[in-house]
Amino acid sequence: MTRAELINEIRTKKSFLCVGLDPDIDKIPQFLLEEDDPIFEFCRQIVDSTAEYCVAFKPNTAFYEAYGLSGMTSLERTIKYIKTNYPNHLLIADAKRGDIGNTSTMYAKAFFNRLHADAITVAPYMGKDSVKPFLDFENKWTIVLALTSNEGSQDFQMMQTNGKELYKEVIKTTASWGTENNLMFVVGATKANMLDDVRAIIPNHFLLVPGVGAQGGSLADVCKHGLNKDIGLLVNSSRGIIYASNNKDFADAAAKEAQKMANEMAKFI
Amino acid sequence: MTRAELINEIRTKKSFLCVGLDPDIDKIPQFLLEEDDPIFEFCRQIVDSTAEYCVAFKPNTAFYEAYGLSGMTSLERTIKYIKTNYPNHLLIADAKRGDIGNTSTMYAKAFFNRLHADAITVAPYMGKDSVKPFLDFENKWTIVLALTSNEGSQDFQMMQTNGKELYKEVIKTTASWGTENNLMFVVGATKANMLDDVRAIIPNHFLLVPGVGAQGGSLADVCKHGLNKDIGLLVNSSRGIIYASNNKDFADAAAKEAQKMANEMAKFI
Repeated sequence: MTRAELINEIRTKKSFLCVGLDPDIDKIPQFLLEEDDPIFEFCRQIVDSTAEYCVAFKPNTAFYEAYGLSGMTSLERTIKYIKTNYPNHLLIADAKRGDIGNTSTMYAKAFFNRLHADAITVAPYMGKDSVKPFLDFENKWTIVLALTSNEGSQDFQMMQTNGKELYKEVIKTTASWGTENNLMFVVGATKANMLDDVRAIIPNHFLLVPGVGAQGGSLADVCKHGLNKDIGLLVNSSRGIIYASNNKDFADAAAKEAQKMANEMAKFI
Repeated sequence: MTRAELINEIRTKKSFLCVGLDPDIDKIPQFLLEEDDPIFEFCRQIVDSTAEYCVAFKPNTAFYEAYGLSGMTSLERTIKYIKTNYPNHLLIADAKRGDIGNTSTMYAKAFFNRLHADAITVAPYMGKDSVKPFLDFENKWTIVLALTSNEGSQDFQMMQTNGKELYKEVIKTTASWGTENNLMFVVGATKANMLDDVRAIIPNHFLLVPGVGAQGGSLADVCKHGLNKDIGLLVNSSRGIIYASNNKDFADAAAKEAQKMANEMAKFI
């Protein structure tokens, strides 16, 4: 999916919502356990009910890998279902991979060629040759962790390097390895005013913003500090949407939460 | 596997060799492609031929994931084969995972509970709550990336923070989250004298050292700067051993390379 296509989707739908798929067998409605593939069935219904309110889906691979081969089968089915039925949605594999060059190439092949994901999240710690192999795939997106929304982001990401925080160095350096057309950054929403500093470094890149909703960030603040002329934001919500209810009405409840966020977003577009 | 058991294995075998399993379908002997599961068959023969010279095996998960479900099946079979036939070898899943707390817990379950790996490599960028969930599993090892052996290690790991390189901050900080009994660090061998600085921070921890062999590091230098009273090193070699030959004799050739390294190591024990 190209940048122009993504922007077009956002403007058409008046939404820059990304729905995160973190299917935990202990949290999904328990009546789904009667299905052959409860994880897939849960994801399928969430996808169908929220698709009209979002422009991206983000399956978190850990939640599938935790169930071994059957979980990986659910992941493949989920991605295939989304790509088949919602080809205009950006499919982000939230995998946080990254390794030396030849190994990153193997990961890129796994996610881009085999699973047909449009985008993958990548950890920057191992540097250029761990990130570059992902950027070499045409029409695919590499989303590099910069400032995450968890407590542990304070441990290293906020350390001072060359007179500024490490995450800013990561953004500045990594931005030179790709373009606005194949590179995005994860920037957490928990301290939205930090987005001003991020925008000073990369005014045009898309940012994938977690931490709105369950983790406490405010959408209005994120928009105030993060929007650019092309919108430039994908705001993710996972738990707040997919676990809005764990009864028979879970898909409707998810749709309502997604719609609520999309309605908020429409005000900023 | 406990620290005492690992040290005992090393002293008994007079080897601290870790054999890295990076099975690339384009590089394995082509006659294996006739097998139902060429990746597993390749790994099985490498494992059988090198087991007596090493104390650890390290399957690199990317090389299995790249082949989708069939690759994940090969990974499960490989790990099960090793755990069944060589229960005293440390099984390291080289997965370089790491995410926010609840997600890292899912990864830990996937690798420790489902796949029965003894150890997993973890990326530190997301901080304490991304690493701690792995440390919470009893009798398992978390191996944190500190200084990797690739060119990209210069990009962020070597940045100055608080007057010293980031990788040293990572080691110092991360060491406080675990103990010598459940935490190791990846420290590349390409500049072995850096091991002196590492040992000044963590004299007792085990280090997993890649970069000897194909990547150019010297075993003698690594030993000179990295050994401690309990040995404290696992030196990994992947390509140098497993691709020593790609003919019918590949397993014997791998054994010879592993034996050569083990013989070198014996001098230091």
